[in-house]
Amino acid sequence: MKVAGVPYRTLWMADDAVRVIDQSRLPFEFATVDLRSTADAARAIATMIVRGAPLIGATAAYGLALAVREDPSDFAIEAASRALLATRPTAHNLAWALDRMRAALAPVAPASRADAAFREAAAICDDDVAQCRAIGEHGAAILRRLARAATGRPLNVLTHCNAGWLACVDWGTALAPVYRAHDEGLALHVWVDETRPRNQGASLTAFELAAHGVPHTVIADNLGGHLMQRGRVDVVIVGSDRTTAAADVCNKVGTYLKALAAHDNGVPFYAALPASTIDWSIAGGEKIPIEERSARELTHLTGLTDGGGLATVRVVPVGSPVLNLAFDVTPARLVTGLITERGVCPATGEGLLGLYPERLSR
Amino acid sequence: MKVAGVPYRTLWMADDAVRVIDQSRLPFEFATVDLRSTADAARAIATMIVRGAPLIGATAAYGLALAVREDPSDFAIEAASRALLATRPTAHNLAWALDRMRAALAPVAPASRADAAFREAAAICDDDVAQCRAIGEHGAAILRRLARAATGRPLNVLTHCNAGWLACVDWGTALAPVYRAHDEGLALHVWVDETRPRNQGASLTAFELAAHGVPHTVIADNLGGHLMQRGRVDVVIVGSDRTTAAADVCNKVGTYLKALAAHDNGVPFYAALPASTIDWSIAGGEKIPIEERSARELTHLTGLTDGGGLATVRVVPVGSPVLNLAFDVTPARLVTGLITERGVCPATGEGLLGLYPERLSR
Repeated sequence: MKVAGVPYRTLWMADDAVRVIDQSRLPFEFATVDLRSTADAARAIATMIVRGAPLIGATAAYGLALAVREDPSDFAIEAASRALLATRPTAHNLAWALDRMRAALAPVAPASRADAAFREAAAICDDDVAQCRAIGEHGAAILRRLARAATGRPLNVLTHCNAGWLACVDWGTALAPVYRAHDEGLALHVWVDETRPRNQGASLTAFELAAHGVPHTVIADNLGGHLMQRGRVDVVIVGSDRTTAAADVCNKVGTYLKALAAHDNGVPFYAALPASTIDWSIAGGEKIPIEERSARELTHLTGLTDGGGLATVRVVPVGSPVLNLAFDVTPARLVTGLITERGVCPATGEGLLGLYPERLSR
Repeated sequence: MKVAGVPYRTLWMADDAVRVIDQSRLPFEFATVDLRSTADAARAIATMIVRGAPLIGATAAYGLALAVREDPSDFAIEAASRALLATRPTAHNLAWALDRMRAALAPVAPASRADAAFREAAAICDDDVAQCRAIGEHGAAILRRLARAATGRPLNVLTHCNAGWLACVDWGTALAPVYRAHDEGLALHVWVDETRPRNQGASLTAFELAAHGVPHTVIADNLGGHLMQRGRVDVVIVGSDRTTAAADVCNKVGTYLKALAAHDNGVPFYAALPASTIDWSIAGGEKIPIEERSARELTHLTGLTDGGGLATVRVVPVGSPVLNLAFDVTPARLVTGLITERGVCPATGEGLLGLYPERLSR
């Protein structure tokens, strides 16, 4: 996607470094960071310089390639995998990407592993782009269908957190259908949940949509239910950090509340995700580890001062404890459908197996 | 209630002025403001120096008394009432307090109206304190009953926004049962919703609870649903800005989402409110006017810098539009019960009439 007219992915090779957009500085500064080691990659994931389940996977793949460049031994690959896997506990794509990298490297002679690793990481990125593009096509068909009922006004899409191109390598998951439909000329408008505590909606989704010219409005996370009660939301689309085999959807904390409101008001609720997000080993979402992050994400906010600089302020009293859990699980019963690179399916185990029949034999 | 050991109400007479705590500066500064005219009172309500439905009513009553002191004519009383009524559209106590003041002043000769007006405003405040104390007694009985099931650990109460003593003259509505039960020795812990966009939870509820020594944890508004799914919330208690005759509960935006989550997880959900909050003229909550407030409440945040001063930062990109609606309506079907100064009733029209049978004859 484009930033100020220049096409970007969220990560790319620049000479011998892996260059990523520093998402912790958006929307007020557009800067890049070069990752030159596994430690750099692990730090970028843990501190959310990069974030979003697919991008976490892609960055981990390159993080492993950087390790292999230093030391192509099995021991080094295992050590780097463990370090990268420990950065974030919830997103499934992290484990998926590392598994794929190790499977690709295992049969390769150590002397050839560095080249193979960078090729495989690049393939993971290209696959993610292709999958997100396909998600966009399948999801745009849903938006076009819903738009026929919303004649004479733009279709109102609500999204939570950022599952746009910044969360992936390009295109996005939840926002891919929005970009696709918008580019095709469908009139739509996006309600952007601010997404406390890290404000990925206000800082990343709003930035993305503005850069691409998609009409949108930033709202407090608290407002979506009221808007649905008043008929001002036609469809909710979110991403997913991990989707279970029974189609429970783990995503940014607060997603479950929007799914409840959508269900209560008859608003369709979709999760858009590539297959790499699906954890076939877990049926029920209650088994997914929920990441606890720093209290400081809730107690402090960084933003622009009137003078144009950046400042950080504390908004919670010093003596008050804070709990910051980053994800929640939306039960499949509240999800209208899953949009994957292979199409749209009901949010059930059977629905997923219909799209991924190769899983039946396992 | 006490601040640093000193007992306070949220407003009181200081010589010839009405003195209020400036809640827009909490939790980082504890300061008071003197209101000397109706315009001062209207400004204090509109800019949320004072807020909370009962306190808005009390401040409006004194605002009218300040007008009467200048000019006791019927014309001046009507003009001041209109100005005060226009400050906030949603809280019912505002209209209720002004109606009560005018009814008290109508039969009084103009020369005696100033004294009568200040007496009536003081009576409104004293009545509010008595009502909140009674709400605390009735609600504490619920907490004691629930605590018997939560043996061996503190009872977990979740609240949204601030319906504590700062929202009233003293004691509070939703927090009155918490203070009462805590003072009686019941082990409890309060999950405090941050309450975007104005952060009344983080800045006022956390301040109040800390000042009174009640264990609590500040959370993002997005987290409550997950905590309920995991059995970490025993009861939700919120206030109400307007409750309809059919028991729909209008309260700070986001309340509806918590009610949905409570319903989905079998967690009791109570609204605590004095009778002055009940709008007997409306059955369904969809007729309540929902206040739209400044975009700046969402786009900017004020907090403490590392240096100890206050700073304001912008957290939404400059080009992104914002919608800031301040309230939503929780349908009665999601409310376990209403806690009023007369007791606890089911959230139904019949339930309310059971507590207020004098309304049957109208």
